[in-house]
Amino acid sequence: MRNLNEDTITQAVLARHVDAPSPRLKEIMTSLVQHLHSFAREVKLTEAEWVQGIEFLTQVGHITDDKRQEFILLSDTLGLSTLVTAMNHRKPPSCTEATVFGPFFVEGSPDYQNGDDIANGAQGEPCFVRGTVRGTKGEAIPHAKLEVWQADADGNYDVQYKGDHGHRARGTLYTQDDGGFHFTSILAEAYPIPHDGPVGRMLTALNRHPWRPAHLHFMIQAEGYETLVTHVFRDGDQYLDSDAVFGVRSSLIAQWVRHEPGATPAGTDSATPFYTLDFDFVLNPKN
Amino acid sequence: MRNLNEDTITQAVLARHVDAPSPRLKEIMTSLVQHLHSFAREVKLTEAEWVQGIEFLTQVGHITDDKRQEFILLSDTLGLSTLVTAMNHRKPPSCTEATVFGPFFVEGSPDYQNGDDIANGAQGEPCFVRGTVRGTKGEAIPHAKLEVWQADADGNYDVQYKGDHGHRARGTLYTQDDGGFHFTSILAEAYPIPHDGPVGRMLTALNRHPWRPAHLHFMIQAEGYETLVTHVFRDGDQYLDSDAVFGVRSSLIAQWVRHEPGATPAGTDSATPFYTLDFDFVLNPKN
Ligand SMILES: [Fe+2]
Ligand SMILES: [Fe+2]
Repeated sequence: MRNLNEDTITQAVLARHVDAPSPRLKEIMTSLVQHLHSFAREVKLTEAEWVQGIEFLTQVGHITDDKRQEFILLSDTLGLSTLVTAMNHRKPPSCTEATVFGPFFVEGSPDYQNGDDIANGAQGEPCFVRGTVRGTKGEAIPHAKLEVWQADADGNYDVQYKGDHGHRARGTLYTQDDGGFHFTSILAEAYPIPHDGPVGRMLTALNRHPWRPAHLHFMIQAEGYETLVTHVFRDGDQYLDSDAVFGVRSSLIAQWVRHEPGATPAGTDSATPFYTLDFDFVLNPKN
Repeated sequence: MRNLNEDTITQAVLARHVDAPSPRLKEIMTSLVQHLHSFAREVKLTEAEWVQGIEFLTQVGHITDDKRQEFILLSDTLGLSTLVTAMNHRKPPSCTEATVFGPFFVEGSPDYQNGDDIANGAQGEPCFVRGTVRGTKGEAIPHAKLEVWQADADGNYDVQYKGDHGHRARGTLYTQDDGGFHFTSILAEAYPIPHDGPVGRMLTALNRHPWRPAHLHFMIQAEGYETLVTHVFRDGDQYLDSDAVFGVRSSLIAQWVRHEPGATPAGTDSATPFYTLDFDFVLNPKN
């Protein structure tokens, strides 16, 4: 311990963890320290680069608050979120695929009834969403809890606006006895992830754009089934092949069908064009 | 890009960096992404653990301010700082070894003359420090800039006290024509790194103590020589073999010699016991 050098430091750190009471924490820290050190050795990290790294992480920490989570953005843009999601949701191919959670979910969004409009003032062209939630044997899953959230026509989630304007374009609803659900919202549009902070500067330095293809977020929970966190992506979007956060899966791409003004699925008459989206979800039974 | 899974995500992220304008940034990000993903795969990181990681980094960011740098503490306690320091200061064995910078350096500490007392009110037993700064051929290095900083008897640096009390137990001075320097300060004592934050909680979870053996920090700059950032460690300290930040080097351990009340090297008469420390530094010539 008194003659540490670049060859002995890694083992010295690992040796310090022999008495860690949690075997799992010890396992995680062992791998973390090894990979952190291997990274520094592999690139021969300079002291100036180390300082830049410290400053970058500090900026990521300082811009993070209860509305903005820059560490999640960092994890998302480095593909770590997709990797963790994929590893933890290996399931039969008949199930709906999971994708990244993203930083814009809000606990306790308002309850809605099927047929309600969840936009609540969010700007965008009307969109009627319909679907079912089923198990892998085709069984309807009644009373599944759906939490839905999306950006508005300007590409912003409600939490990205200054001040408290209430929940907009997000809500909670439950499937009916036949597993069906339907609600009105607004057309999903492509949007850039928040890029006025350190993650945005990182993307710029890497010559990467911050855009995500248009999508609608779903979290679906039902007793006896694995919780599904996913998006439905809008077919035709120019960013489907270059999602800034690596969230796209082919099986999650769907048609938002455009309709001329007239009768809507909600039984109303629309004076403007509107869209419909149909998407069925299949949950993975537990065990 | 539309069918990413746990096997293909890493290559997909790397492929996104083909157009990075800086080859060095590309090299660093390639290694970083590979090791980050390898770590997650190796430990099969769960989603709950990923959330814990995001929360931990957020806490590290939030406790960091202009006085406290928790990311440096994290780097120090994981041995990364020692590794980076060692890799970047390979030099002839006759040179004084470098060690970690630590989070308590302050730019622009007050100028002192040789013989001055830099304690400036910091509590501790008096200590008289003397030494020389030389090159590898034994040549004296006059007018080398020495920046010195240390903790007080309670184990705190000046910046760790609330309010602005001015610089205490830190200062800048220059070597004389013969390369010599001497100043008065206080006895260095062992101290725990700040452990009331997330890094402290990490150490506790790993059954690690937060203590550092007593030491005096030096940064020495002279034209034509590589800047030296190092500590001198106090022989006999109980934490020399378990420094929380892996900073100890055998060659940096020195005797703090205790003297009974009486005449001091500064020509004064001390009514209390005092200490002397002698340490000579050897700088590495550039190129
Ligand atoms: Fe989103
Ligand atoms: Fe220190």
